[in-house]
Amino acid sequence: MKLEEKVLSSNYIHKGRVVNLRVDEVELADGRRSTREVVEHRGAVAIVPLLPDDRVLMVRQFRLPAGRELLEIPAGTLDPGEEPAACAARELREETGYAAARLTPLFCSFLAPGYSSELLHTYAAEDLYPDSANADDDEQLELVEVPLSKALKLISTGEVCDAKTICGLLMVARAKGL
Amino acid sequence: MKLEEKVLSSNYIHKGRVVNLRVDEVELADGRRSTREVVEHRGAVAIVPLLPDDRVLMVRQFRLPAGRELLEIPAGTLDPGEEPAACAARELREETGYAAARLTPLFCSFLAPGYSSELLHTYAAEDLYPDSANADDDEQLELVEVPLSKALKLISTGEVCDAKTICGLLMVARAKGL
Repeated sequence: MKLEEKVLSSNYIHKGRVVNLRVDEVELADGRRSTREVVEHRGAVAIVPLLPDDRVLMVRQFRLPAGRELLEIPAGTLDPGEEPAACAARELREETGYAAARLTPLFCSFLAPGYSSELLHTYAAEDLYPDSANADDDEQLELVEVPLSKALKLISTGEVCDAKTICGLLMVARAKGL
Repeated sequence: MKLEEKVLSSNYIHKGRVVNLRVDEVELADGRRSTREVVEHRGAVAIVPLLPDDRVLMVRQFRLPAGRELLEIPAGTLDPGEEPAACAARELREETGYAAARLTPLFCSFLAPGYSSELLHTYAAEDLYPDSANADDDEQLELVEVPLSKALKLISTGEVCDAKTICGLLMVARAKGL
């Protein structure tokens, strides 16, 4: 079955700091036409940083689009041209003050492929050691250590309600047989 | 630690079919100023539809923002004023041709809370029975039955690379002890 859509025209509405927005006119595989709103994003990384005894380093921050504070795993947007693994090491240092002797790719995921091009690369970070940190200028974070078993419970209670965090915690728990 | 950001001004760039885009000027908790691009989205549902023998009904569709076909669990955007559970039943019927005698909420997740307000409600759908279906006019889907154990492997190989799908599959696998 042919599913691909052909772009007939693209109209940029916004070119911004984190995202661009364009509206495409498309021809569907069966010849009908529709429009697609596409949020362009450079891509990002997320990290599950593991301290001894399966404690996870998490960050609490206010997320304006969500209108609330969220408890998440560390994450951040790729700098232009930056390799995902290098970005993961940088974001881990900036957001937690740790570096990792072992950084293991877990999986890649599109976060909202209905309208966003963002692809997220998720890593497990182990054998952590303190490293100098310089936080992003416009991010204010609270660092929290949460036992993995507790973090998993917080998914069910709704206190952890961020998709990349749920994916990352569940993948690490599965790998550890927890 | 106070983390909340105060919105000083909002400027709408786009009011569209699936998303709006606004740019806010914000005051951070420490008094500094920054801007935030916010993609407004009505919210959505995703469903993990389970047939006997732990076969998962999945959908393959072309996702223009991702530039490729993706293998996902069924999902869709809330109609204005629609309850998430009603939306889940509707999307399940539209995308798979099945209804569920048992629809269980699994978790809620913000998909990209750095720039998108989208909140996703995810359900497990069990005790499925065929129901008449009318697909969305501008969606073209291929329905696929995938054993849950195989779907989990496809996360590791990268063939399943959609965040809501990874979350949903892993939550169901965990609940079943798989």
